Amino acid sequence: MASAEKNTNKKKTAKRETAESMAQKQREISVSEFFLKNRHLLGFDSPRKALLTAVKEAVDNALDACEEAGILPEISVDIAQTGASRFLINVTDNGPGIVKAQIPKIFGKLLYGSKFHRLRMSRGQQGIGISAAGMYGQLTTGNSTVVLSKTRSQKHAHRMEVQLDTASNKPTILKEEEVEWLPAFYPAPGEGKETAPVVSHHGTSVSIEMEAAYVRGRLSVDEYVKQCAIVNPHLEIHYRISLLKSADEQNGDSESPWTTFRRVVKTVPEPPQEIKPHPHGVELGMLMKMLKDSAARNVCSALAHDFSRISSSTAHEICERAQISPKARPSTIAHRESEALFKAIQETKLMRPPTDCLSPIGEEQLTAGLKKEVEADFYTAITRKPSVYRGNPFQVEVAMAYARPGASEYLGGDDPVRVLRFANRVPLLYMAGACAITRAVSGVNWRAYGLNQPKGGLPVGPLLVSVHIASVWVPFTSESKEAIAHYPEIVREITFGLQECGRQLSVFLSRKKRAAEAERKRNYMEQYIPHLALGLRNVLDLDDKQEKKVIASLHSMLEHTHLQI
Amino acid sequence: MASAEKNTNKKKTAKRETAESMAQKQREISVSEFFLKNRHLLGFDSPRKALLTAVKEAVDNALDACEEAGILPEISVDIAQTGASRFLINVTDNGPGIVKAQIPKIFGKLLYGSKFHRLRMSRGQQGIGISAAGMYGQLTTGNSTVVLSKTRSQKHAHRMEVQLDTASNKPTILKEEEVEWLPAFYPAPGEGKETAPVVSHHGTSVSIEMEAAYVRGRLSVDEYVKQCAIVNPHLEIHYRISLLKSADEQNGDSESPWTTFRRVVKTVPEPPQEIKPHPHGVELGMLMKMLKDSAARNVCSALAHDFSRISSSTAHEICERAQISPKARPSTIAHRESEALFKAIQETKLMRPPTDCLSPIGEEQLTAGLKKEVEADFYTAITRKPSVYRGNPFQVEVAMAYARPGASEYLGGDDPVRVLRFANRVPLLYMAGACAITRAVSGVNWRAYGLNQPKGGLPVGPLLVSVHIASVWVPFTSESKEAIAHYPEIVREITFGLQECGRQLSVFLSRKKRAAEAERKRNYMEQYIPHLALGLRNVLDLDDKQEKKVIASLHSMLEHTHLQI
Repeated sequence: MASAEKNTNKKKTAKRETAESMAQKQREISVSEFFLKNRHLLGFDSPRKALLTAVKEAVDNALDACEEAGILPEISVDIAQTGASRFLINVTDNGPGIVKAQIPKIFGKLLYGSKFHRLRMSRGQQGIGISAAGMYGQLTTGNSTVVLSKTRSQKHAHRMEVQLDTASNKPTILKEEEVEWLPAFYPAPGEGKETAPVVSHHGTSVSIEMEAAYVRGRLSVDEYVKQCAIVNPHLEIHYRISLLKSADEQNGDSESPWTTFRRVVKTVPEPPQEIKPHPHGVELGMLMKMLKDSAARNVCSALAHDFSRISSSTAHEICERAQISPKARPSTIAHRESEALFKAIQETKLMRPPTDCLSPIGEEQLTAGLKKEVEADFYTAITRKPSVYRGNPFQVEVAMAYARPGASEYLGGDDPVRVLRFANRVPLLYMAGACAITRAVSGVNWRAYGLNQPKGGLPVGPLLVSVHIASVWVPFTSESKEAIAHYPEIVREITFGLQECGRQLSVFLSRKKRAAEAERKRNYMEQYIPHLALGLRNVLDLDDKQEKKVIASLHSMLEHTHLQI
Repeated sequence: MASAEKNTNKKKTAKRETAESMAQKQREISVSEFFLKNRHLLGFDSPRKALLTAVKEAVDNALDACEEAGILPEISVDIAQTGASRFLINVTDNGPGIVKAQIPKIFGKLLYGSKFHRLRMSRGQQGIGISAAGMYGQLTTGNSTVVLSKTRSQKHAHRMEVQLDTASNKPTILKEEEVEWLPAFYPAPGEGKETAPVVSHHGTSVSIEMEAAYVRGRLSVDEYVKQCAIVNPHLEIHYRISLLKSADEQNGDSESPWTTFRRVVKTVPEPPQEIKPHPHGVELGMLMKMLKDSAARNVCSALAHDFSRISSSTAHEICERAQISPKARPSTIAHRESEALFKAIQETKLMRPPTDCLSPIGEEQLTAGLKKEVEADFYTAITRKPSVYRGNPFQVEVAMAYARPGASEYLGGDDPVRVLRFANRVPLLYMAGACAITRAVSGVNWRAYGLNQPKGGLPVGPLLVSVHIASVWVPFTSESKEAIAHYPEIVREITFGLQECGRQLSVFLSRKKRAAEAERKRNYMEQYIPHLALGLRNVLDLDDKQEKKVIASLHSMLEHTHLQI
């Protein structure tokens, strides 16, 4: 090697590094620095998407908090343009509020939260979203996240201005005070026309200013709010976006009107239960870690207590198969023994994971949500039985709405069908092409259900297809949670759901076709009734009155029989 | 709201959460826990990809270390199957080695490294890769990462067994000892047939055992190693993979032979220089942070020292435009003033960022790399001038190789062209469909250059298209670094590079076509020469000797003119 090293380029005088000089440059990278530089991974890669992502994270948190506290959620989303490419976003809820000490960490620290370590369906799962939105606002405008929150037991609300110190991933509190809680967060006083102001004695209100852009359409906040109302029929959401007027328009009203999406369901969804990991979804290294950390006194009870679906007798069976003593201390199980244990677990037949960790929307509510926001002639919905991928329970729900061609603004007749994608009740707007839902919809043979379909593509028609996947851990393709990874188990379940609804659709479409056909025949026969009556009059020598009676009874006969034609 | 809350579901007895009970569940999530759960984001979503990702991360690190130390890299990749779905991966290099104190952190902690905080082209950029590979090995087999390293100044090598404590994202050292450094890491003693063993007095050797799968083909480690040799013509890489034999084959040799990809370039690439951020790529929030953290005594010198392309006079110009005093302390610049400063910077014309932070491969070396691994009839390469996206300098290089249809195993005649994608000299194999390079190749009109192309797709033919993007910060679509995000500036530069090479290709293809045509005509005319000579002999009454002379001179004339036909 010595000779080769001599040959290196001599033009440059750049310093050669050594192991020692390189060691001095090594340093820790904070997770905030990482995501600040990689902000496209969190959904902040364009100004338009940034606006949506921020609203989405705030609304997700508000809904999760309300439901965990058993409160019917009422949320306002208020967006105001503050500069050519700047927006101030406010999201206020009637949730349980946040205790003072937690506010800085929840809004000013990445990877902090209550949802990551438990196995239970929720919208948020990573503890990144809302702090990332604040971090992006801070990066692009220098401004803090402003949080106002009041819990049930507090007399006053806390108001905090929080920033995130990216070098340490820790919150900095810039200002902190006690203030009056909002007496009515929607509509603002003096604006209420249709609705009485909402009064709640607790809740959270978060404001973030950021560089952003607003563009109408299928990737807009408007669409997100609408889909949110569809998939959360128990949610009442108030929304407005106020854009800066150009110089000509300065005279008009400066604020836009509110739009309210009413709830049609008056009950909070059943709170999902937390479950323990299923043994078949746990890798060897994880098993070793769980044994090491276990509070149980012996392997047998560690298996029974730390996992779901292992009874005491199953635990004994597993130990026997692995040829280890059920009385051994979990922490002292050596490497070789844990491997035998792992194998024994894989070979033992176990019940599938419990599914009360999931809270599906339900067929009735799915349809109710669709009906209130999308006008159509036919609705159907199906909630599949829970299934499992990599040890994680999940459940698929599919709903459809079909409108006569041209009848719905939302559903164009000659366009590909409209696919709404939802994960744990959150609408997914971006990255449709990368999503397991899109793949499943394109993979179904829609011609069998009476729709046109270009080869390998989405079917065509005035149809809305809504797919919801509920899971304790939705496998998203990136931290920005926009598309679901192509796990075969998931694609298969979605396909089955689509086919079930497709058959309902097919029944509706062929009935519609038959009804149209019958109508056509009936009209045709009606033309002949007078001629037939005239013929009968001549043959039977009837008078005017009798002829009219014959005509009437022929019409009546036609009316009563046309359905069977 | 009170009435609404009463209506909540009464069936369940699940505990209602309050702000206080929720606060108790909030906790910090370690970055290792996050990525362990989200391991598909790091490239460990399937056993096959896991094998490739681990090799890739180890080789990337080895190459970076060698080049920074000015050492011509020689690397061995030794993969051995140890179980039905288990592989032991070893990567050994002749690099500068790693000082003892750094080994645990580099291999047992996520987000730790020397490359994240500097603006300079390198293969690694995040400080995640190799620790993530170790973490995955640990998760799936329970085994530690074994590191052996010797620096130039050490007498013996250090051997360490390292694990990653995912709950704290900190390394645990399981075993640590001083051992002899490998006297020859390739070929193992007694195996050398063609080559003398490689001897290096320093280097690093890392071994990881993990659940994985080996499948040949375009997404395999084989292909990665080959492409690595193409894009790093100064690298000598030895590679073998030994699979477990089935029961029938037990008698044969248990180890596979090594394959060596020789270097054809004997110089280490020019070491890229570290640069400072370009002012036009810095957001307001970042500007504020930089001013706050600046060591300079006044704004003017902060601007001149902490950024690239701001001279002292430009700094004064910017301060004047922003109406702030050049003597103000950077840390006390208030919010309002930093915004004015930010605006002033945007409005000031500045030179583009310096580009010695990039180390392109170069046209000659690009061609040399291709020639040694891919047999073809025509090669061309182009290195574009550096360009800028979001303040980050980047540079595109394109190379092409064209083989007669059927002449190359690597290039099928009727298939889409083979696209090799490289970022900072690293081959990208997965997620081709999501990559800016694929988009650019599909977007070029290849018919103009003499190739068939289905609408909107890749062109068809026995052509290899190799695209390399070098940047201080390659914007990957995920942490697993498999595809480049669609920044318009990047897609445009790639397109220009493809078009330049396409024109060369077009010249070659039409020359080839003309040459074939000329050859045809020449053969045709040659047939007539004897008849022409006979005619002349009769007319001019020539003797045998003269006739032969005429034939010879006609042949010679034809030979000298056929190129112009």
